[in-house]
Amino acid sequence: MNKSVAFFGLGHMGGPMSANLIKAGFNVTGFDPVKELLNLAAEHGVKKSASPLETITGADFVLSMLPNGEDVEALYIDDEKLLDHINRKTLVIDCSTVAASSSRRLITEARKRGLRAIEAPVSGGVAGAVAGTLSFMCGGEAADVDAARQLLQHMGSNVFHAGSAGAGQTAKMCNNMLLAVHMIGTAEALQLGVDNGLDPKVLSEIMLKSSGANWSLEKYNPYPGVMENVPASNNYEGGFMVKLMCKDLGLAQQAATASKTYTPLGSLARNLYGLHLMAGNEKLDFSSIQRIFGRTN
Amino acid sequence: MNKSVAFFGLGHMGGPMSANLIKAGFNVTGFDPVKELLNLAAEHGVKKSASPLETITGADFVLSMLPNGEDVEALYIDDEKLLDHINRKTLVIDCSTVAASSSRRLITEARKRGLRAIEAPVSGGVAGAVAGTLSFMCGGEAADVDAARQLLQHMGSNVFHAGSAGAGQTAKMCNNMLLAVHMIGTAEALQLGVDNGLDPKVLSEIMLKSSGANWSLEKYNPYPGVMENVPASNNYEGGFMVKLMCKDLGLAQQAATASKTYTPLGSLARNLYGLHLMAGNEKLDFSSIQRIFGRTN
Amino acid sequence: MNKSVAFFGLGHMGGPMSANLIKAGFNVTGFDPVKELLNLAAEHGVKKSASPLETITGADFVLSMLPNGEDVEALYIDDEKLLDHINRKTLVIDCSTVAASSSRRLITEARKRGLRAIEAPVSGGVAGAVAGTLSFMCGGEAADVDAARQLLQHMGSNVFHAGSAGAGQTAKMCNNMLLAVHMIGTAEALQLGVDNGLDPKVLSEIMLKSSGANWSLEKYNPYPGVMENVPASNNYEGGFMVKLMCKDLGLAQQAATASKTYTPLGSLARNLYGLHLMAGNEKLDFSSIQRIFGRTN
Amino acid sequence: MNKSVAFFGLGHMGGPMSANLIKAGFNVTGFDPVKELLNLAAEHGVKKSASPLETITGADFVLSMLPNGEDVEALYIDDEKLLDHINRKTLVIDCSTVAASSSRRLITEARKRGLRAIEAPVSGGVAGAVAGTLSFMCGGEAADVDAARQLLQHMGSNVFHAGSAGAGQTAKMCNNMLLAVHMIGTAEALQLGVDNGLDPKVLSEIMLKSSGANWSLEKYNPYPGVMENVPASNNYEGGFMVKLMCKDLGLAQQAATASKTYTPLGSLARNLYGLHLMAGNEKLDFSSIQRIFGRTN
Repeated sequence: MNKSVAFFGLGHMGGPMSANLIKAGFNVTGFDPVKELLNLAAEHGVKKSASPLETITGADFVLSMLPNGEDVEALYIDDEKLLDHINRKTLVIDCSTVAASSSRRLITEARKRGLRAIEAPVSGGVAGAVAGTLSFMCGGEAADVDAARQLLQHMGSNVFHAGSAGAGQTAKMCNNMLLAVHMIGTAEALQLGVDNGLDPKVLSEIMLKSSGANWSLEKYNPYPGVMENVPASNNYEGGFMVKLMCKDLGLAQQAATASKTYTPLGSLARNLYGLHLMAGNEKLDFSSIQRIFGRTN
Repeated sequence: MNKSVAFFGLGHMGGPMSANLIKAGFNVTGFDPVKELLNLAAEHGVKKSASPLETITGADFVLSMLPNGEDVEALYIDDEKLLDHINRKTLVIDCSTVAASSSRRLITEARKRGLRAIEAPVSGGVAGAVAGTLSFMCGGEAADVDAARQLLQHMGSNVFHAGSAGAGQTAKMCNNMLLAVHMIGTAEALQLGVDNGLDPKVLSEIMLKSSGANWSLEKYNPYPGVMENVPASNNYEGGFMVKLMCKDLGLAQQAATASKTYTPLGSLARNLYGLHLMAGNEKLDFSSIQRIFGRTN
Repeated sequence: MNKSVAFFGLGHMGGPMSANLIKAGFNVTGFDPVKELLNLAAEHGVKKSASPLETITGADFVLSMLPNGEDVEALYIDDEKLLDHINRKTLVIDCSTVAASSSRRLITEARKRGLRAIEAPVSGGVAGAVAGTLSFMCGGEAADVDAARQLLQHMGSNVFHAGSAGAGQTAKMCNNMLLAVHMIGTAEALQLGVDNGLDPKVLSEIMLKSSGANWSLEKYNPYPGVMENVPASNNYEGGFMVKLMCKDLGLAQQAATASKTYTPLGSLARNLYGLHLMAGNEKLDFSSIQRIFGRTN
Repeated sequence: MNKSVAFFGLGHMGGPMSANLIKAGFNVTGFDPVKELLNLAAEHGVKKSASPLETITGADFVLSMLPNGEDVEALYIDDEKLLDHINRKTLVIDCSTVAASSSRRLITEARKRGLRAIEAPVSGGVAGAVAGTLSFMCGGEAADVDAARQLLQHMGSNVFHAGSAGAGQTAKMCNNMLLAVHMIGTAEALQLGVDNGLDPKVLSEIMLKSSGANWSLEKYNPYPGVMENVPASNNYEGGFMVKLMCKDLGLAQQAATASKTYTPLGSLARNLYGLHLMAGNEKLDFSSIQRIFGRTN
């Protein structure tokens, strides 16, 4: 018999993720305060629910994909208090990107009630959510992460166990800080080459086969026209929005301040993305940082 | 009949490079003002020469691997004036890492005399020189670069033609600036993870399969103990010295200032490496930048 | 009849501050968990107290100078719960440097109990505490700040009212971030001048009369030998410790992250001071940042 | 009898400077390739000259205020070769802001011909040029600088002797780098305060009397509405243009790269001003950097 999933948050990420679960044969009951998103999900086969409590009835898994930590804590603990109503056989999987302290609180509170819960923030963006190729960076008990694989494997191609509660958030935060650094670094290197007479395609090919190689250069070249099917060749539309990168870089800096870690490039990356956002680019793809370095269009 | 090569500069890089040419069957005559280096090269079969002029006699190729632009310009133009003595059938290949303006001067002066010359700075370090897996980033006429391949292929695995005179230096400078940025970014991300409870190996594996992936993480992990056979697991000895990275980052910033290009992360990378050098670490491998972020030993 | 003061925290700052209150005729009862500090204060006329509760008996003012926000909240609210015992006529003045949110909590909790409280973090360092020339940056009700002046004026030369609860901490945090920025900037400018042949004294004089002028240059020149009676001319001993500057810069970055403010130089200043601290300089004066830029000794 | 001055470069700075010399009783003959500027200067009493050679006839002083080093070297050495025609009694004073190496070349070439020359770059901007309150940062022989005072004192209030040839340029470059750093730092601190609820006027007053004090805060507050009669309260028009600050910061970074000096904040300041320029703000006053940090209007 098919397993059932209670799915909270059906936006840009949650929508396609729930569609992949339907395709894999799960019964998915969904909830989202935005009716349009709920209706859209229903078209892909998600059963609409009228309230959080109704959503979790009989669920084998509760999965949430919410904008921030306040939302997560409100749903499970402070407002809707779902943890007080979830069945002990149910596995809670929070895929939201939040502070590690939020995830730790969720998992601790779940355990107090005899429940199993893990965090599983994702990387891969909307494209990965649609294609089912996300990476999940999980934190929590190993057994719980293993139990979650039967679900997560239908939405992503990698399920990592980063460590105990909070470790998944920490891994994602570190990864995205590093991503921001090499995206900006790649944009700078390409601009410096172009301003000194190089063809950005030739330079990209050389660096990709040399020690400058990195994911931004390989999968997501920020210079317009170098690579097809990336946001840079589509006016920086689609992809991973600047405002979401700013959110992740803010989480990284909060953590760095708390742990007294010093990250000069990571800090500067947050500031450059923040200034880019304030100049009116919050909804562009994050590779649009290329634009601040030159007149590329 | 075997081709002959006049080889100038037989240090850490030139020594093993000349050895690979010998292995490939070239007759190599070498010159270096440091007698010990010349004797060492002779053990690998390089014929010792007593003067620059004697070295080039009958050479099919003149290859130089010198510390900086002043040395290159002194050898070919200003002091030894080799360009006034080199035969027109000879191809000049300068593998030194210098400012693009130096390479342009060399190639322009060569052409004035009816000679063919290219620049071919390398990436890959001492290990690449020994293994014969260097990358050559060439600038000059396409036909000349093609003619150089029969020689360069025995010392490296990639021969890139970046563009006209100076383009090879520009490509290398861009590549190494990007390398510095993602090396420091990788070190910061690993430290942030460790300070927040992650295992550096686990975090490295996760980021390597995610969007944080880059060459430093894949080939040259800067955190001690994560990867075998890298400088980080050998007290940061061997490898690519901090002072050489500082030299390359200085060239990049000179170029950026001249072309009015703005490279905030690249500039900060130069400053961080420079401060690391001044703290007494000039001879350590460049991945030792990890040390400034924490107590990793 | 003389007013009485309950004084918590008698360390490097609280010690000399309490001594100045004694000189001004106040009856001061002091408490500090470190017995040596309490004994030292007693030599200046502070009456020793055995417990927090005993300390506040009959006090017109309760003044605290503690290391961080956790200490402040523990004393007044969470552990010792002093706010539940303080008399309504008493004015609470917290001089500790803490997050604005901590000050807001203290003042809000005080008001719930019908008490008056302000925050009054200081600038001026140990020298200012000894000389009685501190600046107090107060947050809270204007009437309460005015009532505090009769006390504060004996320990400092400026009493600023920055705004409502939390504003004093915010003002101090902004001021110290700016101080860090121009101290590092001054050190860089002096080093750049010296490395290009200038005499640091002559350059300091010129910039002081030009648009480069700032407090670091005028009162606290970081280059050894330029100015007498500053830490730079005393091996960077005494003064305002690197670890305290790091604490303040951490508070500024926490606030900047929370308010989504972007402070590229302020962020870099935190990172540079943090790296300086980790290199073993936490107890040196903050002008010792000059040392990272060159061999100044 | 009145002394006569040959004045080259009658733009925003040279125009009012020449007017002040006329007021002081000098006979000024002027030259500028832009006819409108020459005509404008003529209205203030400058005698128009048709060629560089004609301009210097009978001059006691030759004064130049040109856009960059190429212009200076072209006028005196490479193109117009004025140094070959200037009389030995004449004192050459170059007020242009150029690289120290340019000034050194000018002064060296002058000496070869038995001529006296100094560099005297200025700070104080257009307002200082009009008011006659410029600061001159001179490099060259002490006797020559002293001889120049009788002229310079009528255009400025400070005449500093920074050292030998090139030292004046170095001092200016250091000063302006520091100015850029504290201007940006001031803008960040004000924005951080405002975003956390402070009144920018109150915060400015507090920091001005505290350790955050600096010239930007005292004379040139970048936050709109805090101070009257500054560019910030006039849509950032007038004052010292962003493009000129970028030029000076570029000179500082060229020098820092050459002398292997590390200036992390100075480098970041160059990059932030450069990105601000590229976003279309090159003609605004440099205090407009405040705008990148928030919605201040």
